Amino acid sequence: MNTTCTGPTLTCAELARRLGGTLRNCPGERIIRQVRPVEEAEADALSFLANSKYHARALESQAGVILVDARADLGDRPQMVLANPYWGFAQAIGWLHPEPEPEWSDQPVHPSARIGAGCRIAPGASVGARTVLGAGVRLHPGVHIAEDCVLGDGCELYPGVVLYRRTTLGCRVRIHGNAVLGSDGYGYVPVAGRHEKIPQSGWVEVGDDVEIGACTTVDRGVLGPTRIQAGTKIDNQCQIAHNVQIGEHCLIVSQTGISGSTTLGHHVTLAGKVGTAGHIHIGSGAVATGNTMLGKDVPEGSMVSGYLARPHRQWLECQAALNRLPALLKALKARTRED
Amino acid sequence: MNTTCTGPTLTCAELARRLGGTLRNCPGERIIRQVRPVEEAEADALSFLANSKYHARALESQAGVILVDARADLGDRPQMVLANPYWGFAQAIGWLHPEPEPEWSDQPVHPSARIGAGCRIAPGASVGARTVLGAGVRLHPGVHIAEDCVLGDGCELYPGVVLYRRTTLGCRVRIHGNAVLGSDGYGYVPVAGRHEKIPQSGWVEVGDDVEIGACTTVDRGVLGPTRIQAGTKIDNQCQIAHNVQIGEHCLIVSQTGISGSTTLGHHVTLAGKVGTAGHIHIGSGAVATGNTMLGKDVPEGSMVSGYLARPHRQWLECQAALNRLPALLKALKARTRED
Amino acid sequence: MNTTCTGPTLTCAELARRLGGTLRNCPGERIIRQVRPVEEAEADALSFLANSKYHARALESQAGVILVDARADLGDRPQMVLANPYWGFAQAIGWLHPEPEPEWSDQPVHPSARIGAGCRIAPGASVGARTVLGAGVRLHPGVHIAEDCVLGDGCELYPGVVLYRRTTLGCRVRIHGNAVLGSDGYGYVPVAGRHEKIPQSGWVEVGDDVEIGACTTVDRGVLGPTRIQAGTKIDNQCQIAHNVQIGEHCLIVSQTGISGSTTLGHHVTLAGKVGTAGHIHIGSGAVATGNTMLGKDVPEGSMVSGYLARPHRQWLECQAALNRLPALLKALKARTRED
Repeated sequence: MNTTCTGPTLTCAELARRLGGTLRNCPGERIIRQVRPVEEAEADALSFLANSKYHARALESQAGVILVDARADLGDRPQMVLANPYWGFAQAIGWLHPEPEPEWSDQPVHPSARIGAGCRIAPGASVGARTVLGAGVRLHPGVHIAEDCVLGDGCELYPGVVLYRRTTLGCRVRIHGNAVLGSDGYGYVPVAGRHEKIPQSGWVEVGDDVEIGACTTVDRGVLGPTRIQAGTKIDNQCQIAHNVQIGEHCLIVSQTGISGSTTLGHHVTLAGKVGTAGHIHIGSGAVATGNTMLGKDVPEGSMVSGYLARPHRQWLECQAALNRLPALLKALKARTRED
Repeated sequence: MNTTCTGPTLTCAELARRLGGTLRNCPGERIIRQVRPVEEAEADALSFLANSKYHARALESQAGVILVDARADLGDRPQMVLANPYWGFAQAIGWLHPEPEPEWSDQPVHPSARIGAGCRIAPGASVGARTVLGAGVRLHPGVHIAEDCVLGDGCELYPGVVLYRRTTLGCRVRIHGNAVLGSDGYGYVPVAGRHEKIPQSGWVEVGDDVEIGACTTVDRGVLGPTRIQAGTKIDNQCQIAHNVQIGEHCLIVSQTGISGSTTLGHHVTLAGKVGTAGHIHIGSGAVATGNTMLGKDVPEGSMVSGYLARPHRQWLECQAALNRLPALLKALKARTRED
Repeated sequence: MNTTCTGPTLTCAELARRLGGTLRNCPGERIIRQVRPVEEAEADALSFLANSKYHARALESQAGVILVDARADLGDRPQMVLANPYWGFAQAIGWLHPEPEPEWSDQPVHPSARIGAGCRIAPGASVGARTVLGAGVRLHPGVHIAEDCVLGDGCELYPGVVLYRRTTLGCRVRIHGNAVLGSDGYGYVPVAGRHEKIPQSGWVEVGDDVEIGACTTVDRGVLGPTRIQAGTKIDNQCQIAHNVQIGEHCLIVSQTGISGSTTLGHHVTLAGKVGTAGHIHIGSGAVATGNTMLGKDVPEGSMVSGYLARPHRQWLECQAALNRLPALLKALKARTRED
């Protein structure tokens, strides 16, 4: 597992003190080591209920403590009642998963990095502390790889590619010029008219044989991974937000944007300029035609189109009908006058 | 003030000679030091009237001379009549605000730069002449900052970030990988079938606590600043065009594009893939849902949606009605046949 | 001509053996040196028929051998019958046009590069083997130019610009920060549930006085060039796919995407966020308004708008009618009840 549990710890009592919360069914001396989603949290983890939609899951959570607001009722679960549990969650991430200081060295390849056989690293590229490159990896000029990354055999990164810390790539991954993997996801909590940052402490995982286009951006997860599975091909200028999960052998065409926590099955095709809402699921084999806006789940194997996606055939009929609409309105007006 | 008035000067007579124009109510020996918009111009400034919409403002302008075409009538204002005043304006910018030669040094940090206490500058980053970094600034590998920039305390710029000359950042600004601030705005004048460049001689100003996403681009103003005020958060792959003004605490989500000279109040939310026309105003607290296209001013506090934005509720009704339109047309056709 | 014919060669018999194909009207000892489109192929070239739409052109092709499936009938043309000719085509490109190893040197400017008079190359920029810079070229920090590129006099490339190998720029071309030219086009063949890469072995050609915006990407052609002709201006964050041909003096505004093999005449304007289908033609002088989606050819001089573009006037009428549609449906329902 890629989770870091060797960092700072806090007791529930101390967390309640810092956050101004009240503990319920939770011993103050309980030690918290990490922040996790309700369904993954164990006894050493703090979790939170932001959305009543996840109430049932929270009731079954094994979390050491769950942040809730006064309206939530999680029965006998250990809880901390807060005015703004989402803000408490953001602060707890900062305390329990603090971002380490960058560890830059004067050498382009950090002395603690491990470089596989037959790697070629161009002048002007840099490799961070503890990063591991498999055999035959090629880094073009201006590639910058931060700490604790892993690149499988045969990866090729073109000029200007940036990998933030903890990014992992499978074998034979190709990433084109100026793409960025592992940047912070876009997450803020409104607090007194300001947008307070939710620290983004997750990472990016990319499977074997994935190709990623120029100037594409893939944000790291809030807590866990943003994941792109084997064989998927992503074109230029796509945006993959935090905690997105993309299955195997998908095609994501240029200028598509996938919002946070959305999941794709395998063999999904999103043609150019597609957008999606967050937290939806796009079933395996589904196809969205160019410029489609996906607002809700898409069934397996379906073909959808349009702004607020609908079945492709229905969309074509709507577009054709729309072209006849002005004449229809005119005719109806004329007939009404005749009546 | 960040305007440069120590550059070349030209008399109105010399300007008229070079541009083939005719002076009206304007002494030839008047000295012009800069090009400014009509509402900001003083006696040492040349201005221009490109759009009759701004005629009233031009009538009240204090400019030393205003470029106009033969149809305009600015009364007793000092004027220069030209066949193509917009092209005259572009040329005057080039003469009065010439872009200085880059001043590169062999050292990554230019000797004339001032670096605050506790800054960390990674190998492979560069800092240009006279640039000032506040305390505790972090520049990751491959960050390139040009001449005459100012970065406030605690800024962090991730790998590959580019700041063109004269960019100013407040305190605690975070900019993610491969974002570009200060690039030329997109401005051309059609002249004899060609697109002649309007020199972009403005700059970019960013307030405190702003965060800017990976591969986002912010163009410098034509003359003055493109401005992003304190607390605003911009996601990945957004495009902010020249002279845009974004107020405090706005949220600009991924792949949104804001066209030139558009202004946003405070606490505006533009969800993903939103586009705007240029020269419009989006009122404080307004929300545009994903993929909305804003063609005109948006009132304060409103929620708008759709291609050619309309109130969100109306847009939802239209989308629902659109889905029923094919059946409606078929039914009407059947009924007409019955008649 | 920029084609490479000094690489490996293969006989048709050997190609048939490797691909599991059957030769028809084609001597096994015929030597193939390159892969070319049917209309450009000569006797030393392999070509392929992927789309029955191009059947007539294939019948007139001078290609040494054409890959076809069992249903195609190209009469007396020399053919190789394959289960998946598209996959055969992809493999043949890999064999006949193998991508050379990168040739990095320890010096920022490769010793075999030729640098014109008055060039300025910033520290942290790199120039690849055999690349030729004309007079007065400026390369800002972090610009990376690969092998065999040609830059005309007076070009200026801002920080972080990447040119892949064989990119050619005319004179006075300006490219803004972190733009990428020459990255691989997005091309894959489905083979047994996987997406196999079609090697992208073409290049990018840019004419005189072109300007290209920050974070814009231009992919190289599959075989020949992706071409942007003189005087065209491309804004930030545009995507130009492989084998696109853009004529002279076009305006391509921010966040526009042009799909593969689409061609533009001269003086075309694509306003912001426009998208196009692939393999269409946009006539000279045509204008597409912001966010238009072009699905088919656009006549010369026309102005089109909307999602599935239609004439701008018709689109405005449709949008207005759409706003009246909910009321219309309600009225019809009421009347039906009265009947």
